[in-house]
Amino acid sequence: MSKKIIVVGLGLIGGSIAKAIKLNTDHTVLGVDVNEDTLLDACSCGAIDGKAGPKDLRTADMVYLCVYPESALEFVKTHGTELKENCILTDACGIKGEICRGVKELQGTGNYVFVAGHPMAGKELSGFAASDAGIFIGASYLIAPCGAPEWAVQEVAALAKSMGFGQVVYTTPEQHDRVIAFTSQLPHVLACSYVMSPRCREHQGFSAGSYRDVSRVANINEVLWSRLFLDNRNDLLLELDELLKNLTAFRAAIDEENEEQLKALLRSAAEIKREVG
Amino acid sequence: MSKKIIVVGLGLIGGSIAKAIKLNTDHTVLGVDVNEDTLLDACSCGAIDGKAGPKDLRTADMVYLCVYPESALEFVKTHGTELKENCILTDACGIKGEICRGVKELQGTGNYVFVAGHPMAGKELSGFAASDAGIFIGASYLIAPCGAPEWAVQEVAALAKSMGFGQVVYTTPEQHDRVIAFTSQLPHVLACSYVMSPRCREHQGFSAGSYRDVSRVANINEVLWSRLFLDNRNDLLLELDELLKNLTAFRAAIDEENEEQLKALLRSAAEIKREVG
Repeated sequence: MSKKIIVVGLGLIGGSIAKAIKLNTDHTVLGVDVNEDTLLDACSCGAIDGKAGPKDLRTADMVYLCVYPESALEFVKTHGTELKENCILTDACGIKGEICRGVKELQGTGNYVFVAGHPMAGKELSGFAASDAGIFIGASYLIAPCGAPEWAVQEVAALAKSMGFGQVVYTTPEQHDRVIAFTSQLPHVLACSYVMSPRCREHQGFSAGSYRDVSRVANINEVLWSRLFLDNRNDLLLELDELLKNLTAFRAAIDEENEEQLKALLRSAAEIKREVG
Repeated sequence: MSKKIIVVGLGLIGGSIAKAIKLNTDHTVLGVDVNEDTLLDACSCGAIDGKAGPKDLRTADMVYLCVYPESALEFVKTHGTELKENCILTDACGIKGEICRGVKELQGTGNYVFVAGHPMAGKELSGFAASDAGIFIGASYLIAPCGAPEWAVQEVAALAKSMGFGQVVYTTPEQHDRVIAFTSQLPHVLACSYVMSPRCREHQGFSAGSYRDVSRVANINEVLWSRLFLDNRNDLLLELDELLKNLTAFRAAIDEENEEQLKALLRSAAEIKREVG
């Protein structure tokens, strides 16, 4: 059954979501974006059926928040009461603790149901021009139900599957933010720290897969990621301290030319990698 | 003109070199390996034309050392005097300072010419079973001539090109080891340090490209890499200290919730990445 879905924020993720819904379903997709040119681009390439006007908010079956966490909360604060009863409000923010707490505080001011989500996909570019429905194929879609009724959770999950996601994983905001600090945030801090070496400027011709892989995400959107890092400060600090500790152990073994200790460290890392994939 | 090439050590790299030569040239390839089963495997799949006997060493046009640095030096010490005049002796060791110094000390004990090399390719597996001529396609081949005559350097470069390498880069042992510490060794230490986080065991379903890329090489050959790290101890310590310094700067900005400083750090990393690729 065709639904009316409003995507708020047509950047890399919002644009890709709009395209993936249009490509794979019969739903009507309307867009909201601060940039009129982006709305025009999205319309002309068929990523959206049109711009969402004020009355569309009152009739939408689903609102997909694909903006920075603060803007997402701001949108709920301003427009939450306009949404119709049982409109599914969902988001694509990279950190779940803050948005879930924020929406919970606003609960009762509207009749929508909120399901927190995180499409685990991206690329090292930003903006609508970089959006691409293909980035979701086979990826994980994380859902933190946050007390939403089961039918709403299943509707978000079904939409994710139809967009091409390979699996839906259910989690809590706490677990999500703890694990994401390790799987996503830390690699971004690492990539940026790595390319700051003066030897980075000499890499051409001397590098292969290792350089490419570690440095890939260093071309970062600093406004978005500094927010995400600070929104998940404690979990990220825990991972940074863990990494600093482990790097320091390697440093000591190398400095002391302690080959047995170095081999033991490498062996234990290789065992973990083989075990967890 | 068909030459007789002996590949010493049929592991991942030696096996791939033998396969790439057989696949792309008319040269005869003979193998040396401590493991008889590996020699049989290599013979039966056509990676080599046969096992190199003592008299083959005396008639070989080129000897390709694809063993650990100490074993490579040991081979030169034991067999260097048997090689015919102007036999090209070359290697595929990941670190060039030690092997170049070692062979230089032995110079005069043989009539071969030595050209140091480093095929910048690999994969996160080891041994002949993992060897694959395809890993070289488009990769960099680094050559440190170390005083070898131009004709010999050109012959090694031409063979690399015919094996499928995309470019040959000329360097010195010192520059090689300094840059490789950054582009290759540091990412290996990093991958191992990274997977040691207790949260690594929770990554399934919560990870995408960033986790995969940073952790890829953690399934490491600890005997080989601990040697390579210690053979390049000073350059690697320099990179580790640089990385620890940069990670610590990120840590401080996050800990102090200094968003402006965090954005400035991320912006400078993004600028470097965009500039150097």
